[in-house]
Amino acid sequence: MSVSEGPGNFGEIQIRVRYAETDRMGLLHHANYLVYFEQARTDLLRDLGLTYREMEDKGFLLVLTKVDVKYKSPAYYDDILTVRTRLSRITPIRIEHTYEVLRDGQLLAEGATTLACVDRSGKIQPLPDWFLERRKNQGPKE
Amino acid sequence: MSVSEGPGNFGEIQIRVRYAETDRMGLLHHANYLVYFEQARTDLLRDLGLTYREMEDKGFLLVLTKVDVKYKSPAYYDDILTVRTRLSRITPIRIEHTYEVLRDGQLLAEGATTLACVDRSGKIQPLPDWFLERRKNQGPKE
Amino acid sequence: MSVSEGPGNFGEIQIRVRYAETDRMGLLHHANYLVYFEQARTDLLRDLGLTYREMEDKGFLLVLTKVDVKYKSPAYYDDILTVRTRLSRITPIRIEHTYEVLRDGQLLAEGATTLACVDRSGKIQPLPDWFLERRKNQGPKE
Amino acid sequence: MSVSEGPGNFGEIQIRVRYAETDRMGLLHHANYLVYFEQARTDLLRDLGLTYREMEDKGFLLVLTKVDVKYKSPAYYDDILTVRTRLSRITPIRIEHTYEVLRDGQLLAEGATTLACVDRSGKIQPLPDWFLERRKNQGPKE
Repeated sequence: MSVSEGPGNFGEIQIRVRYAETDRMGLLHHANYLVYFEQARTDLLRDLGLTYREMEDKGFLLVLTKVDVKYKSPAYYDDILTVRTRLSRITPIRIEHTYEVLRDGQLLAEGATTLACVDRSGKIQPLPDWFLERRKNQGPKE
Repeated sequence: MSVSEGPGNFGEIQIRVRYAETDRMGLLHHANYLVYFEQARTDLLRDLGLTYREMEDKGFLLVLTKVDVKYKSPAYYDDILTVRTRLSRITPIRIEHTYEVLRDGQLLAEGATTLACVDRSGKIQPLPDWFLERRKNQGPKE
Repeated sequence: MSVSEGPGNFGEIQIRVRYAETDRMGLLHHANYLVYFEQARTDLLRDLGLTYREMEDKGFLLVLTKVDVKYKSPAYYDDILTVRTRLSRITPIRIEHTYEVLRDGQLLAEGATTLACVDRSGKIQPLPDWFLERRKNQGPKE
Repeated sequence: MSVSEGPGNFGEIQIRVRYAETDRMGLLHHANYLVYFEQARTDLLRDLGLTYREMEDKGFLLVLTKVDVKYKSPAYYDDILTVRTRLSRITPIRIEHTYEVLRDGQLLAEGATTLACVDRSGKIQPLPDWFLERRKNQGPKE
């Protein structure tokens, strides 16, 4: 599997930590990293000229089947964080991403997710051809 | 309009404040009161033998059109709060509730909401007969 | 009371609706408007060269005492919303804002909040001089 | 390391899925599982006669350093979920838990977390003696 750095394979977004996302400890609450990851990977999709909203409207839903996060250093209210996303693996039914959350170049957290493609009833189905097509020549190969 | 205290007209639930619901100030973040209100009014519906899930599955969606909250005293992590809900008014297309949030008898906040009944496309529609029927002899009259 | 349109009195931000912020009905869940309002008014503060984080670190906490929202039309996943904020009134201990949420020029919701200045123990205290000073010649007068 | 099933080592709570916790797909949004895990493990602590609020007030903060979740089957609005928590390992500075989320006996998700004990400045510190004492004869040994 080789991974190129083309559109849709690697992206970077900035997110400012909201007050409502902090907790009593004064930190960005750990559950919100999953929300940031989600925002980061859908933005990555947008780089390919696709939106997740369209995919879902066409009946191709991507459900999370696995996530892991390592928290190294806390993030605080009003911090501007960089979330780097990499498409690490794609199969006919599954998409894997890795993530890094940074503040001023310091790595605060890293994570990985696996998505599976399902239909509206929740049954596993192959990713649509137009999705795989769009990725061809750009995306990583197995 | 007379309001009786029968099932579906008045209810009370207990909610323990979650850590994730607090903010940097150490308080229950103010947006979460709306989530508590929602839980309180759907529990009220359950007292009538109805669930909001069923209503929605049958195509009767209740959307919020108005909310106001007065915050008098803060709530903290791990507090056990009482949320009292009263159905204050019902029309063929609208339902109004009022709320009180208390801790050990002290009033922390009060609020009011208006819901409108819409179909799946978001168009206003009358509340279903079986809903109004279920409420009859119990609910407030105009 | 006259309101000028200077920095700190009126502002506008863009927010893209996150997937996690939608609900089963497919809409931006109504509680999240309060989170957007909060982000909008802290951004307004930033226009004055102040951050809410600093204010809080110096012991001047702004707690919400009142909010009301009118929801006119729903917002959806991935929508880019404009949130317009106006400082409508300022007293020695209280700050009032109004808000408009728009999509492509269409008004989706409007709201208003009142903040009170408290110390770390939650007791009402006057807004700091440097805050009022910064606002002078810019802010609305009573 | 042997793990007994005593108080504080194993617990089970029920959580009803709130409307605000669902997403556009109609499912319990995946980030909320972390919030449920948090509620489950603080309830476990309560079985030992301790509350996390007290621990934090005494200056012993437990920060999440690692989480992983496997999502097997979706949860829906209004579902009553059972969250089973097990204390799987405890060291002088770290606490590990595993979790199972079930609906009517069906396993929907499982997860694991690692917490580290830090002081108010975020520096790693040993768990307090009274905490370890309370656990003695009950908790797992290394």
